[in-house]
Amino acid sequence: MPHTLAEKILLAHSDVADLAPGDIVMVRCDLVMANDVSGPVAFRMMEKMGASTVFDPTKIVMAADHFAPAKDARSADLQRQLKEWSDRHGVTYYGQGRGGIEHTVLVEDGWIVPGTVIAGGDSHTCTYGALGAFGSGLGSTDIAACLVFGSFWQTVPATIEVTFTGAKRPFVTGKDLILAVIDAIGVGGGTNTVLEFVGPGAAALTIDERLAVANMAVEAGAETGLFPADEVTAAYLAGRTDRPWQPERSDPDASFARRVRIDLDGVPPLIALPHSPGNVVPVAEAAGRKIDQVYIGNCANGTMTDLRQAASILAGNRVHPDVRAIIVPASQKVYREALAEGLIDQFVAAGAIVSTPTCGACFGGHMGVLAAGERAVATTNRNFKGRMGSADAEVYLANAYVAAAAAVAGEIIDPSAVAEGVPA
Amino acid sequence: MPHTLAEKILLAHSDVADLAPGDIVMVRCDLVMANDVSGPVAFRMMEKMGASTVFDPTKIVMAADHFAPAKDARSADLQRQLKEWSDRHGVTYYGQGRGGIEHTVLVEDGWIVPGTVIAGGDSHTCTYGALGAFGSGLGSTDIAACLVFGSFWQTVPATIEVTFTGAKRPFVTGKDLILAVIDAIGVGGGTNTVLEFVGPGAAALTIDERLAVANMAVEAGAETGLFPADEVTAAYLAGRTDRPWQPERSDPDASFARRVRIDLDGVPPLIALPHSPGNVVPVAEAAGRKIDQVYIGNCANGTMTDLRQAASILAGNRVHPDVRAIIVPASQKVYREALAEGLIDQFVAAGAIVSTPTCGACFGGHMGVLAAGERAVATTNRNFKGRMGSADAEVYLANAYVAAAAAVAGEIIDPSAVAEGVPA
Repeated sequence: MPHTLAEKILLAHSDVADLAPGDIVMVRCDLVMANDVSGPVAFRMMEKMGASTVFDPTKIVMAADHFAPAKDARSADLQRQLKEWSDRHGVTYYGQGRGGIEHTVLVEDGWIVPGTVIAGGDSHTCTYGALGAFGSGLGSTDIAACLVFGSFWQTVPATIEVTFTGAKRPFVTGKDLILAVIDAIGVGGGTNTVLEFVGPGAAALTIDERLAVANMAVEAGAETGLFPADEVTAAYLAGRTDRPWQPERSDPDASFARRVRIDLDGVPPLIALPHSPGNVVPVAEAAGRKIDQVYIGNCANGTMTDLRQAASILAGNRVHPDVRAIIVPASQKVYREALAEGLIDQFVAAGAIVSTPTCGACFGGHMGVLAAGERAVATTNRNFKGRMGSADAEVYLANAYVAAAAAVAGEIIDPSAVAEGVPA
Repeated sequence: MPHTLAEKILLAHSDVADLAPGDIVMVRCDLVMANDVSGPVAFRMMEKMGASTVFDPTKIVMAADHFAPAKDARSADLQRQLKEWSDRHGVTYYGQGRGGIEHTVLVEDGWIVPGTVIAGGDSHTCTYGALGAFGSGLGSTDIAACLVFGSFWQTVPATIEVTFTGAKRPFVTGKDLILAVIDAIGVGGGTNTVLEFVGPGAAALTIDERLAVANMAVEAGAETGLFPADEVTAAYLAGRTDRPWQPERSDPDASFARRVRIDLDGVPPLIALPHSPGNVVPVAEAAGRKIDQVYIGNCANGTMTDLRQAASILAGNRVHPDVRAIIVPASQKVYREALAEGLIDQFVAAGAIVSTPTCGACFGGHMGVLAAGERAVATTNRNFKGRMGSADAEVYLANAYVAAAAAVAGEIIDPSAVAEGVPA
């Protein structure tokens, strides 16, 4: 029976002879991940279950990233709990200064390879689909079960095939591609499905850009988003991991719930207006709105690719006096690479501030939370009402070019109006 | 009638013919400063006073530093208020990315010259004494009056002359000098007085080190602390300011409330144990206590001098796995200079994290707050119970060598045990 990529991965991680969309299967995890928000809740659930040992400490990773550095005694205590638990169970712990944002670090450090299954105590575990891995964001109760048993139940999702054709226009990035997808299918359009990204426009994307795309699959309601592994994936993983993996893709005659085609030649830089990632319009249509803050960072858009895009706009420019520009490299590695390339100095010289890696203000945690009446352009993934601070604030989601251009102009503006020349 | 330096400054800023300790005088401000915590409270007091205009917008500076970047909607709103008020009154506003910690920025940018009077809505306004300026930390009600009238009442303080003799030993810094003073006179020993720092040991200090000393005058209970301006001051101010100033010192026959002499040859690296800056012991006596966090930064100890000291220990070393090391350059200028010298990369390579300039965790605001049961070594100025987070946390105050050494060792340790060689 032909299968989609997602079905193949789940089949290889379950004990059933075959499976089809709608089946409920137990799925074995190759990796279980949680953070300073989801971890401690899962640990308490484990205690309630009466469980005191984990299924395999080598397959569990904890990362302190949401409230790092701690903003109050309570968030400090969450990190203390995370570290103590990790030490007690002998699992890998990424503390402050040791890694950065969970998804970025796990990808960077070679934990993620194609065809694997990752249960993550974070909504954006789907990010791992950039490498062809099935990342599932689970609640802390499910994560507790994963920590103990190494498996979770999953209704086998149908797959939506998203084919990107054509070539990206200037100032268009992975962020715009996924915004175009959400615009096409809606924020509920991916419910109970997996988005599979294929076509020449997908193959042409770097891993950093694939991260940005896969990261927001959940914003279309999808279980996860997958890029079939290819030469780009192989090149990225070379020297980064010694975990075995095989390239895999959907069978040519696999059955898809839906096929969506997006011609990149027709996609301009996009922006999601408040208060939904589905309120997508061309940036030009939102131009002229004054802003108070720009935030460049998060688990998929704090990469070197994003920082270089931001720097291409900010270098030699000045952040508008009415704007705070906050730039958050996603990991210590990204931070050091940006340092070495001179980007950090360009940011600070432009009047931006550079934070240590953290989830920060993306989820309204700290490091740039918004006041009532304020408006921000952010490279993050959710602009729900109140997500980034006050319920009376507005968040616009866009790529790093658009965000940096807004920082300079003090208002939403097409980046071509601010940039010197057109990026390669 | 002979006068102390403090008396001369106050006399020059009042309308009385002469003055003596105990007199109550109205003092004219050369500068009024407030921040995102003290400013908005002062603005509300101004409204209650029915005042709508300020005495002189060119003599007022606002700095968003305590909760920058904002950790929640409330702190974001404080900054919004600060900026709106500053824009409305036409006063200088240092927003995020434009400056850094108030005291550092005002000194860096040439706002402060010897012989001037600064009313600051912050306890550590005494820091300006490093440049021979009379900085007075006032409550927000007094700051409101200063904003409107440009003056505040002051009981003329007596002066304690603190003479530093001898030469600093290795790994001893300005921080240790002021800890030695507080150890000598007690946390209430400076009440109703000004500390005046003189002698060859004072003259030998750089401005960065004088900042560290003056900054903690208030921790001895003093109104402020003063270094008479000298060639070091003149060299520092050259090219930094066009404000006129004259060197001034206490008259040789001035009357002092007390004379204290500290021989630097006998001062080892010191540390203030919880929960008082007066619990001063040699670092060696506290050695062996395990720590959870190191915090290097604040309004006087986030200078290039401090960062270089920290780097001399951290470069080529690794932060202990059980320790979070948080390094906070005090201003954007310091940040860029540290970048250019390669210190930031050394910190991150060592496993420390580098924050954007902020008051941060020094006052328990954000950016490294402590959980219950945790212990920190910090280059900050107050270790009161609960100051840096949980009331069940412990803070040890020390210089940047000592803090960095503790970060590497995971416990309090004499820095000579960690450093390669002895600093020049």
